[in-house]
Amino acid sequence: TDSSALIHGLTAEEIGTLTAKCTEAKAAAYCPYSLFRVGCTLLTHSGAFISGANVENASYPVGTCAERVAMGSAVFAGHRRGDFRAVAVATDAPEPSSPCGMCRQFLREFCGEDVPVVMVGRDGGEGRVVVRTMGELLPMSFGPESLPPREELAKVGEGRRKG
Amino acid sequence: TDSSALIHGLTAEEIGTLTAKCTEAKAAAYCPYSLFRVGCTLLTHSGAFISGANVENASYPVGTCAERVAMGSAVFAGHRRGDFRAVAVATDAPEPSSPCGMCRQFLREFCGEDVPVVMVGRDGGEGRVVVRTMGELLPMSFGPESLPPREELAKVGEGRRKG
Amino acid sequence: TDSSALIHGLTAEEIGTLTAKCTEAKAAAYCPYSLFRVGCTLLTHSGAFISGANVENASYPVGTCAERVAMGSAVFAGHRRGDFRAVAVATDAPEPSSPCGMCRQFLREFCGEDVPVVMVGRDGGEGRVVVRTMGELLPMSFGPESLPPREELAKVGEGRRKG
Amino acid sequence: TDSSALIHGLTAEEIGTLTAKCTEAKAAAYCPYSLFRVGCTLLTHSGAFISGANVENASYPVGTCAERVAMGSAVFAGHRRGDFRAVAVATDAPEPSSPCGMCRQFLREFCGEDVPVVMVGRDGGEGRVVVRTMGELLPMSFGPESLPPREELAKVGEGRRKG
Ligand SMILES: [Zn+2]
Ligand SMILES: [Zn+2]
Ligand SMILES: [Zn+2]
Ligand SMILES: [Zn+2]
Repeated sequence: TDSSALIHGLTAEEIGTLTAKCTEAKAAAYCPYSLFRVGCTLLTHSGAFISGANVENASYPVGTCAERVAMGSAVFAGHRRGDFRAVAVATDAPEPSSPCGMCRQFLREFCGEDVPVVMVGRDGGEGRVVVRTMGELLPMSFGPESLPPREELAKVGEGRRKG
Repeated sequence: TDSSALIHGLTAEEIGTLTAKCTEAKAAAYCPYSLFRVGCTLLTHSGAFISGANVENASYPVGTCAERVAMGSAVFAGHRRGDFRAVAVATDAPEPSSPCGMCRQFLREFCGEDVPVVMVGRDGGEGRVVVRTMGELLPMSFGPESLPPREELAKVGEGRRKG
Repeated sequence: TDSSALIHGLTAEEIGTLTAKCTEAKAAAYCPYSLFRVGCTLLTHSGAFISGANVENASYPVGTCAERVAMGSAVFAGHRRGDFRAVAVATDAPEPSSPCGMCRQFLREFCGEDVPVVMVGRDGGEGRVVVRTMGELLPMSFGPESLPPREELAKVGEGRRKG
Repeated sequence: TDSSALIHGLTAEEIGTLTAKCTEAKAAAYCPYSLFRVGCTLLTHSGAFISGANVENASYPVGTCAERVAMGSAVFAGHRRGDFRAVAVATDAPEPSSPCGMCRQFLREFCGEDVPVVMVGRDGGEGRVVVRTMGELLPMSFGPESLPPREELAKVGEGRRKG
């Protein structure tokens, strides 16, 4: 049956649950400036669903996105790289929207290239869902292993604190 | 007795609990870049304690602070402006450290000027705690009411050279 | 005469020039989302005026403020801590607005506590200007010296990069 | 000859100039925390080269990257979407590194999908350069057109539980 087929390691039932949960998470958004609600739900290998919504600020750059609220909670709960099976994001746009580049970068610290990102449009619904992997959304990414060891950097550059 | 005296509306017992909880929250920090652990706990009027820790990123500006992780969770849980009685922050510095300016701005969206911020040094302990109000830490702050109505802004400036 | 009196080390003429320049800088703002234009001008001890304006993004938290654009340019031009005599900020609000907390933190890395921040309302004009020092706007600030040495942090906490 | 061949619309000579300029820009980096210097140079259709370097902060998330310093200056200078021919980035890593996700998002507001991003390793040199387009680095991106009109959003969600 359909429900046993796997999409990036997720069953149709799991995609359905993720879709419902991230759509529900939107209701908690604080977005008086953009009016654009976003909800995000993470699924861990241990079976936990951890959600977040966007939290804006009068100084726009100080606000944060749903994906970072969800991942912040997950990391605080003790989850680390390798613990995540999927990311799901729902917005108020009619078509499924992707996470912004900043969130892709934030998620990438903890999610491998093969972790699927499930994107859900305004009206939810399994049929309207778009799925891409982290590796597809942030190719050639800059991660922890991109930073050379400090001792090496200390020699190469100067980067010094002036003043 | 001491324990019934109020400091910014907090009992000594509540300050003690906040101190313990934000110190404990530090243990969940993900800070392989700075090695500087920070924990934050919020106390709501409904009596809830909501915590967070810093979550760093290989691209340093993409990481987030303990205060914003805690407040992100609190807002996602439905708390809004007026719901907070206190903020508490513990770090790995020997002396109590204050929240960075970005976090003061993030907190300010939801905390009034009189909300106390309890700052705790590495070794915790009530005696070593420093307390300041949000208004003292972010005077003349830029908040929701600082932004003129959109209709007015649309008239004044142009602000929208979209390419 | 008035023009020889010093306000935080600035002559009335210098305040006038700063006011004019940060007001003029507003015209370059890219703010299709907030419609709120902000301009910032820095004055260095070497006599240079360096300006910036806010640059917003469809993902609101990714945008940046006028103050950080100006200071980014100044640091790129080689200016460092101790090189700044004043910061001036103009917005589209009728009354003078202060920099957001994130910008206070960004500026603080390079400006001492006594550096004046000149705030200018929509209609400019010397008479309507409000001046506060960096120390007044970001008291008990978190700066470079707040971070204990790495070797000490490595011992105290663990902050480790989990896999 | 080689120098007349075009790579994403750039001549080998232009790539050489971009490589040299972004490598040179690294020298202005303020990075006492990461010790990781990054330089960025933008080339506009009008022939201007505009550069930046990373500017870090004691509160790591408050710092900014080379790409955003360069683009902030460019936008302040009046450049807008459609004005950019290329982005070039050099770091202190031995292999060419890509911009972080936050910078990809910041650049994307002003650069079309076909704008090439030239990535340069520690030792520079044309032969070691990697080139990808904005569309390749930030596929399915979230841009200005991803946000539905405000009037529509005002109807769909509520998004404004102001306290
Ligand atoms: Zn985002
Ligand atoms: Zn902070
Ligand atoms: Zn700001
Ligand atoms: Zn970046």
